[in-house]
Amino acid sequence: MRSIDKVLSHIDANLESSLERLFHLLKIKSISTDPAFAGPCREAAVWLAGELNAIGIAASVRSTSGHPMVVGHRQSGKSGPHVLFYGHYDVQPVDPLDLWDRDPFDPAIVTREDGTKVIVARGASDDKGQLMTFVEAARAFIAETGDLPVDVTILFEGEEESGSPSLHPFLEANKDELSCDFALVCDTGMWDASTPAISVMLRGMVGDEIIVRAASRDLHSGMYGGSAQNPNHIVADIIAGLHDENGRVTLPGFYDGVIEVPDQVKELWQKLGFSAEEFLGEVGLKFPRGEKDRSALEHIWTRPTAEVNGMWGGYQGAGSKTVIPAEAHAKFTFRLVGDQDPDKVQESFRAYVRSKLPPDCTVEFIAKKGSPALRLDFGMPALEKGKKALKDEWGKDAVLSGMGGSIPIVGDFKRMLGMDSLLIGFGQDDDQIHSPNEKYNLTSFHKGIRSWARVLNELADD
Amino acid sequence: MRSIDKVLSHIDANLESSLERLFHLLKIKSISTDPAFAGPCREAAVWLAGELNAIGIAASVRSTSGHPMVVGHRQSGKSGPHVLFYGHYDVQPVDPLDLWDRDPFDPAIVTREDGTKVIVARGASDDKGQLMTFVEAARAFIAETGDLPVDVTILFEGEEESGSPSLHPFLEANKDELSCDFALVCDTGMWDASTPAISVMLRGMVGDEIIVRAASRDLHSGMYGGSAQNPNHIVADIIAGLHDENGRVTLPGFYDGVIEVPDQVKELWQKLGFSAEEFLGEVGLKFPRGEKDRSALEHIWTRPTAEVNGMWGGYQGAGSKTVIPAEAHAKFTFRLVGDQDPDKVQESFRAYVRSKLPPDCTVEFIAKKGSPALRLDFGMPALEKGKKALKDEWGKDAVLSGMGGSIPIVGDFKRMLGMDSLLIGFGQDDDQIHSPNEKYNLTSFHKGIRSWARVLNELADD
Repeated sequence: MRSIDKVLSHIDANLESSLERLFHLLKIKSISTDPAFAGPCREAAVWLAGELNAIGIAASVRSTSGHPMVVGHRQSGKSGPHVLFYGHYDVQPVDPLDLWDRDPFDPAIVTREDGTKVIVARGASDDKGQLMTFVEAARAFIAETGDLPVDVTILFEGEEESGSPSLHPFLEANKDELSCDFALVCDTGMWDASTPAISVMLRGMVGDEIIVRAASRDLHSGMYGGSAQNPNHIVADIIAGLHDENGRVTLPGFYDGVIEVPDQVKELWQKLGFSAEEFLGEVGLKFPRGEKDRSALEHIWTRPTAEVNGMWGGYQGAGSKTVIPAEAHAKFTFRLVGDQDPDKVQESFRAYVRSKLPPDCTVEFIAKKGSPALRLDFGMPALEKGKKALKDEWGKDAVLSGMGGSIPIVGDFKRMLGMDSLLIGFGQDDDQIHSPNEKYNLTSFHKGIRSWARVLNELADD
Repeated sequence: MRSIDKVLSHIDANLESSLERLFHLLKIKSISTDPAFAGPCREAAVWLAGELNAIGIAASVRSTSGHPMVVGHRQSGKSGPHVLFYGHYDVQPVDPLDLWDRDPFDPAIVTREDGTKVIVARGASDDKGQLMTFVEAARAFIAETGDLPVDVTILFEGEEESGSPSLHPFLEANKDELSCDFALVCDTGMWDASTPAISVMLRGMVGDEIIVRAASRDLHSGMYGGSAQNPNHIVADIIAGLHDENGRVTLPGFYDGVIEVPDQVKELWQKLGFSAEEFLGEVGLKFPRGEKDRSALEHIWTRPTAEVNGMWGGYQGAGSKTVIPAEAHAKFTFRLVGDQDPDKVQESFRAYVRSKLPPDCTVEFIAKKGSPALRLDFGMPALEKGKKALKDEWGKDAVLSGMGGSIPIVGDFKRMLGMDSLLIGFGQDDDQIHSPNEKYNLTSFHKGIRSWARVLNELADD
């Protein structure tokens, strides 16, 4: 029996205990954006370091000015590449809680109407489930073969969902320790439930929250209505003016640096049989919004966006309150592609907002750190090895896909540590990450572990 | 000594105990729009009925399907008009609570920097303070003269701040009992702190809350951003499109029935020395919004408006959440003037909203009951008597003013009970009604009581 087959058998035989460990991690309320959950974030880090040490990967919890990092190392004593595996143990907030079918921190395996089994919990897919696929693969390898096929360094972060404020200083301070031949990043998805994918393009992101202030206090709309500025209207005007009637973003210079995807890549993508109706139909929609002269796949993979993730002002309670609020808020994010410059986009946005402001009103900006878009090196040898491993496991060629979301870490690895990243993950479009009832397919978890075992095996020198 | 002088002296000598009673009422958390406060609403009604009975006005608490009414009667046994006094004991919600300098339900007299004494509490001005000016005037009259100068019926409502759902059925069911020669309504303000006013024009109102729904769940903006509809943007477009660049409301037919104020009235108003800069300067603003070819006084007294009192959608917490929400909300109110038809305005608004909706999105409307605008009968004899009483008390002619806010009860009295209303109140522009730190000038309370005593005295047949 080849050693990889033993490892795969070990994974199959121990799926129950792998799930138990995942559930333990899912129960920890590691919401990084809310300071009230700093304790659970540290708890998750401590637990993960303990697990790595138990496997035989020497790991420690490393403090930062925010939530801690977990770093682990294991030398294989063999020639071949040294890889860094990255994941994050923090999760998104869970509101609105009333839309969850069950406690988001009480994971369970639920059988859906179509018979698929899914793991339901906050973080099941983003990113605890994904992260544990690698940990369990490493565990099986060491258990069966006494070793890993390549040198492995592990980096688990606890601030990915809150802008990673501690990441740059940490990478800078630990450059030598963390610089490997390349990185494995698991925070991505499959093409569909049975077709693996490797993401080769990532959108970047930059953002701003705005607080528009008018009167010095809330006003009665009977007394002041029609005469006093209403910040709700100002914020609405700002939002409404961001797109023209063709769905293009109106900010001056916004499309500077946007790169057209080569025709041959577009042709490849057309063969994927991607259906906008199906993609949107799954979430109850039909018609793609966005630039009218672009396909839905372009909208989400290769085109920049301007999106309002939150807005609020005035009375939100039951009934009516005839108030003109003193201030109104909106949170904007811009997805970036090609060579768009996050700083320039933010500058242009801020100038636009100021231009929409009546002279007796003010605006405050709260920046969200920017990161540019990324394209992977198609000539990277690990890409071919990853494709082979995934095909062996899933029986289908991996799709080389674009990706709508941004994974800033990939840019940081490239710029700060000189590493390319191989982006392999097992999430599905309908995982409802960042939403109520987040789930991770049981197949994603099980075959995800098997996939990582195969990838590690392929990466070793023959 | 004339009996009115005795009554006025009684009022002066008993101001302390009048304030104690007002404070008792102000401590009751009678927030009508929030069902959690149904108990305190009833408590306020019961307390008021008890006070009226103690004075000698036979009163009872009358149940409705919502918060109860208080109705009282006292015959004077004299010829002369029979008047109905109307006030409301319910108050607005108190959020945002952190902007209050003190507990909104722990009233206190505070001395301002300029030496004016003010009563600070939710409802101090709207409408508990105003309502108690009449109760205390009646108390003094009966105490000093053993009687009231005219027949008085009293109606206190507990749902004025939440759309008065029980009012129509109650007026209908008690038509005979409540129909008087005319009504006295105290829910209005003075021209300034030393100049009384009688309101002769009232804007009407109609409203709608909209809930725009797009995807069947919250989406991740990385995965769906650029392609899936974002309800925040749709609601913002709806709000932004409501006004054109000249500040006019764009709804088709919206200005049907708007009546121009006669030139001679405009001329009178110009003599008032109203300064938009001062009016807006008090709340930290400078430039009137609204129709560009109209004055600020027209904006707030004689022109219709479209105002967003609240809007919200998506993530509002600390930090960032890259979500495309499934739904977004906005609460609209329209102030109406002249003969604008509330139903037609609502219809036009709803058609407009639907026209802005992408075909795969839906909207739900939650109506706010409408009431048309009102103009008072300038030939009403009580108007002259009211003016004389106010001049006697304040030493200045009362301004016959327009009023930006709507007081639907005045229309209901006219249409359902055939009564005109005399609108006299002692609120100030800076009372911050519906806002944090609501106050009522101590002078308004004291001289308000004296004013009502004089008005009652004047209304009696010679």
